[in-house]
Amino acid sequence: MNVKEIERILERYRRGELTTAEAARLISEWHYEDIGHARVDHARAARQGFPEVVLGLGKTRRQIVEIVERLVRRAPNVLVTRTDADTFGEVRNICTEAEWHEAARMIRIWRDRTDRGRGTIAVVTAGTSDIPVAEEAALTAEAMGNRVERIWDVGVAGIHRVLAERERLRGARAIIVAAGMEGALPSVVGGLVRVPVIAVPTSVGYGASFNGLAALLGMLNSCASNVTVVNIDNGFGAGFVASLINRRHDEE
Amino acid sequence: MNVKEIERILERYRRGELTTAEAARLISEWHYEDIGHARVDHARAARQGFPEVVLGLGKTRRQIVEIVERLVRRAPNVLVTRTDADTFGEVRNICTEAEWHEAARMIRIWRDRTDRGRGTIAVVTAGTSDIPVAEEAALTAEAMGNRVERIWDVGVAGIHRVLAERERLRGARAIIVAAGMEGALPSVVGGLVRVPVIAVPTSVGYGASFNGLAALLGMLNSCASNVTVVNIDNGFGAGFVASLINRRHDEE
Amino acid sequence: MNVKEIERILERYRRGELTTAEAARLISEWHYEDIGHARVDHARAARQGFPEVVLGLGKTRRQIVEIVERLVRRAPNVLVTRTDADTFGEVRNICTEAEWHEAARMIRIWRDRTDRGRGTIAVVTAGTSDIPVAEEAALTAEAMGNRVERIWDVGVAGIHRVLAERERLRGARAIIVAAGMEGALPSVVGGLVRVPVIAVPTSVGYGASFNGLAALLGMLNSCASNVTVVNIDNGFGAGFVASLINRRHDEE
Amino acid sequence: MNVKEIERILERYRRGELTTAEAARLISEWHYEDIGHARVDHARAARQGFPEVVLGLGKTRRQIVEIVERLVRRAPNVLVTRTDADTFGEVRNICTEAEWHEAARMIRIWRDRTDRGRGTIAVVTAGTSDIPVAEEAALTAEAMGNRVERIWDVGVAGIHRVLAERERLRGARAIIVAAGMEGALPSVVGGLVRVPVIAVPTSVGYGASFNGLAALLGMLNSCASNVTVVNIDNGFGAGFVASLINRRHDEE
Amino acid sequence: MNVKEIERILERYRRGELTTAEAARLISEWHYEDIGHARVDHARAARQGFPEVVLGLGKTRRQIVEIVERLVRRAPNVLVTRTDADTFGEVRNICTEAEWHEAARMIRIWRDRTDRGRGTIAVVTAGTSDIPVAEEAALTAEAMGNRVERIWDVGVAGIHRVLAERERLRGARAIIVAAGMEGALPSVVGGLVRVPVIAVPTSVGYGASFNGLAALLGMLNSCASNVTVVNIDNGFGAGFVASLINRRHDEE
Amino acid sequence: MNVKEIERILERYRRGELTTAEAARLISEWHYEDIGHARVDHARAARQGFPEVVLGLGKTRRQIVEIVERLVRRAPNVLVTRTDADTFGEVRNICTEAEWHEAARMIRIWRDRTDRGRGTIAVVTAGTSDIPVAEEAALTAEAMGNRVERIWDVGVAGIHRVLAERERLRGARAIIVAAGMEGALPSVVGGLVRVPVIAVPTSVGYGASFNGLAALLGMLNSCASNVTVVNIDNGFGAGFVASLINRRHDEE
Amino acid sequence: MNVKEIERILERYRRGELTTAEAARLISEWHYEDIGHARVDHARAARQGFPEVVLGLGKTRRQIVEIVERLVRRAPNVLVTRTDADTFGEVRNICTEAEWHEAARMIRIWRDRTDRGRGTIAVVTAGTSDIPVAEEAALTAEAMGNRVERIWDVGVAGIHRVLAERERLRGARAIIVAAGMEGALPSVVGGLVRVPVIAVPTSVGYGASFNGLAALLGMLNSCASNVTVVNIDNGFGAGFVASLINRRHDEE
Amino acid sequence: MNVKEIERILERYRRGELTTAEAARLISEWHYEDIGHARVDHARAARQGFPEVVLGLGKTRRQIVEIVERLVRRAPNVLVTRTDADTFGEVRNICTEAEWHEAARMIRIWRDRTDRGRGTIAVVTAGTSDIPVAEEAALTAEAMGNRVERIWDVGVAGIHRVLAERERLRGARAIIVAAGMEGALPSVVGGLVRVPVIAVPTSVGYGASFNGLAALLGMLNSCASNVTVVNIDNGFGAGFVASLINRRHDEE
Repeated sequence: MNVKEIERILERYRRGELTTAEAARLISEWHYEDIGHARVDHARAARQGFPEVVLGLGKTRRQIVEIVERLVRRAPNVLVTRTDADTFGEVRNICTEAEWHEAARMIRIWRDRTDRGRGTIAVVTAGTSDIPVAEEAALTAEAMGNRVERIWDVGVAGIHRVLAERERLRGARAIIVAAGMEGALPSVVGGLVRVPVIAVPTSVGYGASFNGLAALLGMLNSCASNVTVVNIDNGFGAGFVASLINRRHDEE
Repeated sequence: MNVKEIERILERYRRGELTTAEAARLISEWHYEDIGHARVDHARAARQGFPEVVLGLGKTRRQIVEIVERLVRRAPNVLVTRTDADTFGEVRNICTEAEWHEAARMIRIWRDRTDRGRGTIAVVTAGTSDIPVAEEAALTAEAMGNRVERIWDVGVAGIHRVLAERERLRGARAIIVAAGMEGALPSVVGGLVRVPVIAVPTSVGYGASFNGLAALLGMLNSCASNVTVVNIDNGFGAGFVASLINRRHDEE
Repeated sequence: MNVKEIERILERYRRGELTTAEAARLISEWHYEDIGHARVDHARAARQGFPEVVLGLGKTRRQIVEIVERLVRRAPNVLVTRTDADTFGEVRNICTEAEWHEAARMIRIWRDRTDRGRGTIAVVTAGTSDIPVAEEAALTAEAMGNRVERIWDVGVAGIHRVLAERERLRGARAIIVAAGMEGALPSVVGGLVRVPVIAVPTSVGYGASFNGLAALLGMLNSCASNVTVVNIDNGFGAGFVASLINRRHDEE
Repeated sequence: MNVKEIERILERYRRGELTTAEAARLISEWHYEDIGHARVDHARAARQGFPEVVLGLGKTRRQIVEIVERLVRRAPNVLVTRTDADTFGEVRNICTEAEWHEAARMIRIWRDRTDRGRGTIAVVTAGTSDIPVAEEAALTAEAMGNRVERIWDVGVAGIHRVLAERERLRGARAIIVAAGMEGALPSVVGGLVRVPVIAVPTSVGYGASFNGLAALLGMLNSCASNVTVVNIDNGFGAGFVASLINRRHDEE
Repeated sequence: MNVKEIERILERYRRGELTTAEAARLISEWHYEDIGHARVDHARAARQGFPEVVLGLGKTRRQIVEIVERLVRRAPNVLVTRTDADTFGEVRNICTEAEWHEAARMIRIWRDRTDRGRGTIAVVTAGTSDIPVAEEAALTAEAMGNRVERIWDVGVAGIHRVLAERERLRGARAIIVAAGMEGALPSVVGGLVRVPVIAVPTSVGYGASFNGLAALLGMLNSCASNVTVVNIDNGFGAGFVASLINRRHDEE
Repeated sequence: MNVKEIERILERYRRGELTTAEAARLISEWHYEDIGHARVDHARAARQGFPEVVLGLGKTRRQIVEIVERLVRRAPNVLVTRTDADTFGEVRNICTEAEWHEAARMIRIWRDRTDRGRGTIAVVTAGTSDIPVAEEAALTAEAMGNRVERIWDVGVAGIHRVLAERERLRGARAIIVAAGMEGALPSVVGGLVRVPVIAVPTSVGYGASFNGLAALLGMLNSCASNVTVVNIDNGFGAGFVASLINRRHDEE
Repeated sequence: MNVKEIERILERYRRGELTTAEAARLISEWHYEDIGHARVDHARAARQGFPEVVLGLGKTRRQIVEIVERLVRRAPNVLVTRTDADTFGEVRNICTEAEWHEAARMIRIWRDRTDRGRGTIAVVTAGTSDIPVAEEAALTAEAMGNRVERIWDVGVAGIHRVLAERERLRGARAIIVAAGMEGALPSVVGGLVRVPVIAVPTSVGYGASFNGLAALLGMLNSCASNVTVVNIDNGFGAGFVASLINRRHDEE
Repeated sequence: MNVKEIERILERYRRGELTTAEAARLISEWHYEDIGHARVDHARAARQGFPEVVLGLGKTRRQIVEIVERLVRRAPNVLVTRTDADTFGEVRNICTEAEWHEAARMIRIWRDRTDRGRGTIAVVTAGTSDIPVAEEAALTAEAMGNRVERIWDVGVAGIHRVLAERERLRGARAIIVAAGMEGALPSVVGGLVRVPVIAVPTSVGYGASFNGLAALLGMLNSCASNVTVVNIDNGFGAGFVASLINRRHDEE
């Protein structure tokens, strides 16, 4: 914890230079815990309105467990993405409420289940193989207080499949579309609705899909104007932004 | 106009198979005018809640003018992107309210100026050279009923510049960040706010910027979770999505 | 003309080593005219069943005119692709039946208008900007004896536009789809019909379209199994292959 | 199964709004079974004229088996591509007629062996290493009712090898050419015949072959006009399109 | 050892053609030991002022051990990069002072610990996952006689974290910044200080990070003018150059 | 000018919360002038120790002139890079001391010519065509208080040319090497000296040089450990960093 | 064996249409053995003057063994590249003279050791890690009748190492240079000699070496005019071409 | 001219440290003229056996003329590549024997026309559009003392065209093949002959040819072992290497 910075702010507050609101915000910003390999950021929720997330990729198991240990003391909801079942085993020792989601390779601690959304978030996949990425998005959106509609396997080569889901799509306030291969589904969905569509290219495919690059480029060039894009396989990011869009005013 | 389809819907309506609401929606979907080289879509506003936009790129001047001619009869607001001053000259002959925006290379017909937003949209640039793309976004957002805050030249190599604008950034409900070169600004802005950040890579730069590719990749890999990305130089798309996010409930 | 090779074949024929059919085929294969910078191939029609085509790209005006001069003496139909109006001027001096097609930048000499197809060929574009490439395909298919249906501006962001054309699409024996940007249309069309779909990526677009690369990759990764792809902007190739597919048995 | 949609169509039929033919087609289009992770499409055969195919890639073994279970009840012929011997073991438990093709890594259920082709389909490889991909194409074409000629190892560095096969090549109505490395063989074959050539780049090679990219680019730039291309290693797609081209009229 | 060349230099020296200084320098340049698979360069220290380094990548264990064997006889400090624990086991048999650094996968023999620097070198990471590369840089800089400040996990999405370290950053004479994902940190750091910043892209990330390419491009396009770049994951190179910059005059 | 921020700092200073030094530094950081399209940063010199630089690329002539107008009032030395002779004409109207450097396409105002370096900076090119980029580096280094040695046309295919310059190279405290084509020269130079080498790839070349990409990759993969790299054609950046390295202690 | 073609040639010979020399050449061209998965080309030696080579990559062990079995009956020297020790085990059962070269992963049957070269071939590496590829080249050149000089580890960062080998380099009639990383060595060697230099990029390196792409581009852009390039890691190809260049007239 | 180095060598020669031959060689190596922007290398002929070549690309007209001025005094043959007709005008003022070759954009001074070759060099193109690059190769080879056979427009889509030239191809001692598009011709030619084939990719093509990249990759992956590759459009380099291969012993 960066005590010195906090002290400095408090002194200014005592002298009346800062209002209570200003002081609070400044403190929230400087408030993180330095545990050597990482600066655990208890303030991110305050700044961003949501629980802390640990990107498992590139961290050792021990590093992940140490970070989670700090986070579970204060944050009701914690997500660990891109991790494995063995890490989950150790995390469950710390927090028995942890859930393991095999397809998404994600650990979720979901203790605060308040509904914070204006409407639903639809999560859509082009094919069966895109489900793991879509699940990462759906699990994230749920942990952030949203009702989620899962709509799987409605790729454009059988256009009637997505048309049959028009009602559920139009009922959503934000839509996430995960697709590999040519990445065409977000454009079609985008043309059917009036809300933002967050496209997630998946690394599903082979040959000239170049691990999701084809889908990524397709989505960036979408002819539907309501489509934005996140990184290949970044289900978490898509779930996060969709949650921000769907948030009720009083939750912001 | 696709009369046959409309007739079919009407007959179903007369037989009582469709409610008035259903019939209206179906008609709105099939309602476009076929002028040979283009299908002018008078229904897009109904489907998407916003005026029609003409992407000038790849169309001849005559094609653009013909399409605008059809649109101005029904849509109060019309945008023509990626066009030139000579085309503007001809468009002004059709519609004297047309404005020419040199930096953004955009024609705007902005007759309905109703405020439809919940809050403001901030449009931010890393440098002076990113202004044309940012202006395209800002002009679009305005035409779609939003108040826009323009914040120019706050790139990350002088981090105090963006920090000095924290208040205006935190006041916005959606933020557009246009940046070329390394594309780092969206990550910094994303970390400062709780709202969605739409990153627009610009083709500004040289050498290994590869016409915006470096910025695009940087933005896709942003470590801030509230960042989504649109195509290089796609100011229009960014303005469009930000407008959807900022829309008031009663406007949706 | 490669006289020596022909002589050798004739001698073998006289000695009875070759049947008449064999000799004819061999001669047709060796039969070209060497005019220095090019080997004008009067036999290609015999080998491929279609008129000669001159790719204008990379040839000087004089070279094009010299080649056309040789071809018009024997072939009823001649195409010059990727050329310009000035070259057309000189070609018309040689052959008054030459037509100039501005959008496609193509010279067409279309003297034999026999219908050789089993059915129609549909040529489809996603947007107005894809028409030049689609026209190259359509003009080629017509010159090769096909009836052509042109279906313009039915891109996937307004999915009802392509659905409205289902009947015409299903009436075709081969379909050409030209699309830039994300290149999603061939997948949707492919899913609606039972015939081969030839996808032509166009270089229309900007930013991460990389001059047609995004559309190309999208098409190669199409989730519809009846889609094959030709080079970016290669309308001619698409028209050629569609003609081969549509050819009547007795024309083969 | 999407019962509601079917009901709606039936009601329109009862009221006489739809002819029998129209109703049948509409039903065939909406007819799929939703099994959670996938929408099994019993109608694809009706729409495309061929059996269902399961792309194994990215699906769990259990998902594949569940999908096959549904398909074998109605479709005489079923293909599972990009799968493994263990999955085959489980599939054989469901359907004893399943065959395992090691080289192509494909499961084939081939119960309806009617000949539906106008002529033969030739499947050609440049080298021995291209055989797995070519076999996928050949097995597909056979399952779709075609006679197949396999011509292996006739790469262009020994041009006499492909010339020696000219007769068999000219006897085919569609030709598939699988080649890795420089991907030159389709151009040579294309120049020898009057029928469509479907080029399949294979990921065979090393270094600057970039896993088939070199071959893919070579084929897209083919100087033979009758060549179209499918994705790297997409033997199935090549076999599928060749079957469409070779189909007899009465089978269409 | 290249004896002949040395002899030639000595003869010239004896004849008075070379001053003592000239002869020494020439000898130092030609002085290496040829052990078959490698030319062990005992003179590099003389030429470059620093110990010998063995790049483990692409060498067999035996080759590494043989080279180290030669080096430890003369050089006080030796580094082996990109190696493994088993190789370390064999190296320790030769030299008991060898240390194993797991995170950096580096063997270090650090016998001469003289301080040769003008000030400190700061080594900074954007995230926890960048530590292995940063450690390689830090260990190198230490072995080359520098005091090192390690500053971990101060990525730009929480800009206050790096601002909180301004003092330590401004105290350094050279700064190394290791970052994956979007690679934005070097630009921010570069804007805060007056000294050279050496940016090391790391291969941390997924999807469109393309194994560090996104970070590399971001850094090359940095809008801060004091940033230079080394290869992806090249912690050693960054540590080496930072050491050269920080070297005291009398050490040069 | 951001007056409010300055006021806030001054108040804290008056209350004794800040020492004089602290207040000065804070003020220097917040001190920029907002002229609409740009934030002119009079403090950069304070932060970085060097004059302001205007990157001409992507700015209109008028914008450049306005920025220069502000800068020349306070900064003795100003550089405008990537500009043209006409802009120079207008700049000279504002400041008669401005010089035009045609090869480098650079405007230089060089009024303070104090020598601030510890030694010389060598600027080296592989070929004649690399001189424009190298000149940009040399002009920058001079304007920043350094003596510069220009060594042109010593590419590696005539290795004796660079060896003949060994003495001048070894006399430098920092070396800039500009090279296009294969970019091999920095590695050779790097092996000859003990100081940092800043490699600048140039876009000179054709074909597979891909506008400097080949040189860039070559330099990033240099086998000499003392080489770092800047963006393609970034002569300015190279000159800037070399100046930082060469700066005397008392100038820092 | 393609008997029919041979018969046809023989008949023409009997009729006197072909001279003995012509008939022999024609037969040699058509002479290959079809063993199902491969067409074993006993004539390649006749056409190319060298033994048969089997590229192991992409072939099953059994396929390799079957091909070698055919070849060893007629060709004195046989090479199998990119294979493994187990395949060697089976090949040695067929031919006890087979040698296994671990570094190059190559099987060599070298029974005819006649010297066919005009001079020596020098094979040079930049580093120790390039030796496997260089060995493949050296072993090939030896099997084709050349004396080979191996010169290892003379990379350009220690330029004196390659200069020390000038005499051996100048004694060669063709030089092969294998280098990874920046691929600069061929340019330096090329500048020192008057003979063709065949550059082999190796996939040695990391990060922005992109598995040899950096070296490949560097070599293609070499500023030495006597450098040509083969595929990444293609030691065999380099050895083959060097052998052609070095061949004595009477061997051609 | 680097007089000092020459003096040093002469002194060693006088002292008897160097033989006459050694001294001559050393002097020839150090012998170049420094004219400021370039080091004119009068010794290159001595080192490489051929006249000096000026790469026009990236040099100003004045620089080219100054360099040529120096060269024509001593070298009988001079080539200027990638230049223009106006530069030729100025060069002719210096040397009336200069020839202008429009297609190749090359100036040639060809005063010494001695035949130095063992046989002929064949220069082959796939199409008419490849002739400019091929002419650069042919003009170079002629200036270097070779007889050249030009064989134009024999691309692989009409394989009989190249087969018809088998005799001329087999008569050559080195073959240059220039091809754009798929770059397949070198593999076919390589399979027909026993001599080295130098492949020159040309930037002819469109779309996925990526300015010659497709042809380059095709050639690098050639399945013919006697093919090496030079840079895209590098006709000069191909002509140079072919000349080295064809050189008679007594000319080396």
